[in-house]
Amino acid sequence: MPWNVAFIGTGVMGAPMAGHLLGAGHAVTVHNRTPAKAHGLVSLGAKLAASPADAARDAEFVFINVPDSPDVREVCLGENGIIRSVRKGTLVIDHSTISPKVSREVAAELEKVGVEFLDAPVSGGDIGARSATLSIMVGGSDAVFDRALPLLRLMGKTVTHTGPVGTGQLTKLVNQILVTVTNLATCEALAFARKSGLNLEKTIEAVSGGAGGSWQLANLGPRMVKGDFRPGFTIDLQQKDLRLVLEAGEEGEVSLLATSLVHQLFSAAQSAGYGREGTQALFKVVDGLSQRH
Amino acid sequence: MPWNVAFIGTGVMGAPMAGHLLGAGHAVTVHNRTPAKAHGLVSLGAKLAASPADAARDAEFVFINVPDSPDVREVCLGENGIIRSVRKGTLVIDHSTISPKVSREVAAELEKVGVEFLDAPVSGGDIGARSATLSIMVGGSDAVFDRALPLLRLMGKTVTHTGPVGTGQLTKLVNQILVTVTNLATCEALAFARKSGLNLEKTIEAVSGGAGGSWQLANLGPRMVKGDFRPGFTIDLQQKDLRLVLEAGEEGEVSLLATSLVHQLFSAAQSAGYGREGTQALFKVVDGLSQRH
Repeated sequence: MPWNVAFIGTGVMGAPMAGHLLGAGHAVTVHNRTPAKAHGLVSLGAKLAASPADAARDAEFVFINVPDSPDVREVCLGENGIIRSVRKGTLVIDHSTISPKVSREVAAELEKVGVEFLDAPVSGGDIGARSATLSIMVGGSDAVFDRALPLLRLMGKTVTHTGPVGTGQLTKLVNQILVTVTNLATCEALAFARKSGLNLEKTIEAVSGGAGGSWQLANLGPRMVKGDFRPGFTIDLQQKDLRLVLEAGEEGEVSLLATSLVHQLFSAAQSAGYGREGTQALFKVVDGLSQRH
Repeated sequence: MPWNVAFIGTGVMGAPMAGHLLGAGHAVTVHNRTPAKAHGLVSLGAKLAASPADAARDAEFVFINVPDSPDVREVCLGENGIIRSVRKGTLVIDHSTISPKVSREVAAELEKVGVEFLDAPVSGGDIGARSATLSIMVGGSDAVFDRALPLLRLMGKTVTHTGPVGTGQLTKLVNQILVTVTNLATCEALAFARKSGLNLEKTIEAVSGGAGGSWQLANLGPRMVKGDFRPGFTIDLQQKDLRLVLEAGEEGEVSLLATSLVHQLFSAAQSAGYGREGTQALFKVVDGLSQRH
């Protein structure tokens, strides 16, 4: 049945995700800090709300996709936040990648007013958002997960219930450790190959199918070789996620040697002015370590 | 047509590889430092030779698969080496993983007596050797590569001509950078997941299909979770290969931050007594960094 749905944060990820809800026949009210970014959805039939509180007023489901922990706190608990207007029994689903601790705090505050919460960060980038093939990692109770599942399936291909609130975020952070350290593996391997005089296309072809193979090598390796540093996912955003990983590691007393190293190398990439380029621009830093300046 | 073929080094990789040559109808003479390890092939119809020189005497192709650079030098150029008996026009194909520099040296010595050489290291482990699905990275001239290709196809699924002599080894070293740093990514991600209280099977399931996915995660991750540290490829052998990577990096003035880190962590694994376990036992070291002792 069609639901009243709110979607807060209609950026490069949120807009196509909200579009899938709209396309399935749900009544969607959107809010975005920069309203212009919601106009595409409005032209498709979405209502525009002036604040998160306005958007959430009549909603049975409230989706959120904003940049960082303070944004989620503000959207949910702030002066014009969801909590000012939301009805008891509403389910808030946060697709942002934020601190697992903040997810748990926000969930606890919403629980006090009878509102349910799932942390449901995604991976798969803007391509996955547009093609509804995102991986969605969902933290929350069984019953709440089951309630959200039909809607989540409109946006994601792999929807995994990871455990209680906060575990969606923790699983996303695990994903970011894998993504970034495997990216570094790709950069270092190709820098070694280049300095050794190997043909880089042929090298990728020779090793991609074996035990050294990865999504990063297959997808970002060829872009590094071609010098195509346009962003799928920017280094600036990756650094935000790595800060969350390292914070969570510090809270949990987990030693993260490789992730720290990647974080520092991405800092070098930011210093060099590559922050708004794709994460594959890390190659320029790693390769540059072995160049004459 | 059936060839006279010699195979030097019939260990866990060499024996099944020689078996495929035998199975295709070639006349195979084998030599192994420990002759007992060649008995299986002899029972299948191979001839046993007392030395590399004896094995190579009537061969049109000589295959080698021995542990390290000094072994290849000894087998090719030593007192009882191939060079003592080999006929002009013979093609020597070295499947060992050794120093690219030593490959070039041995090739140059053999060239002086009219013998051709390919460095052709493999990846895919004992499973790949048995099922003839190895990746083979081949350095040498076009004509020599073409001459060997029909025989290499009996042992490998992906046979890539990487360039002149030495480039097969260099490509294998690129592969080992990818393999080991991606292994570290897997260890660190799962250690973080475990310490964060996540369900590890579910975590692997949630992230394997996305941008964090890799052969290492899909194949070694579940073994780390189950505590199955039986070797596909041992840490001791991996360390030998990483020494070759770091040596080549030093010669080429390539900075290898992540590979050095993995090498040091594998040293810790060796100190802890895990050298003869599989490379996935690196997880015990990485996970142990965040444990109380």
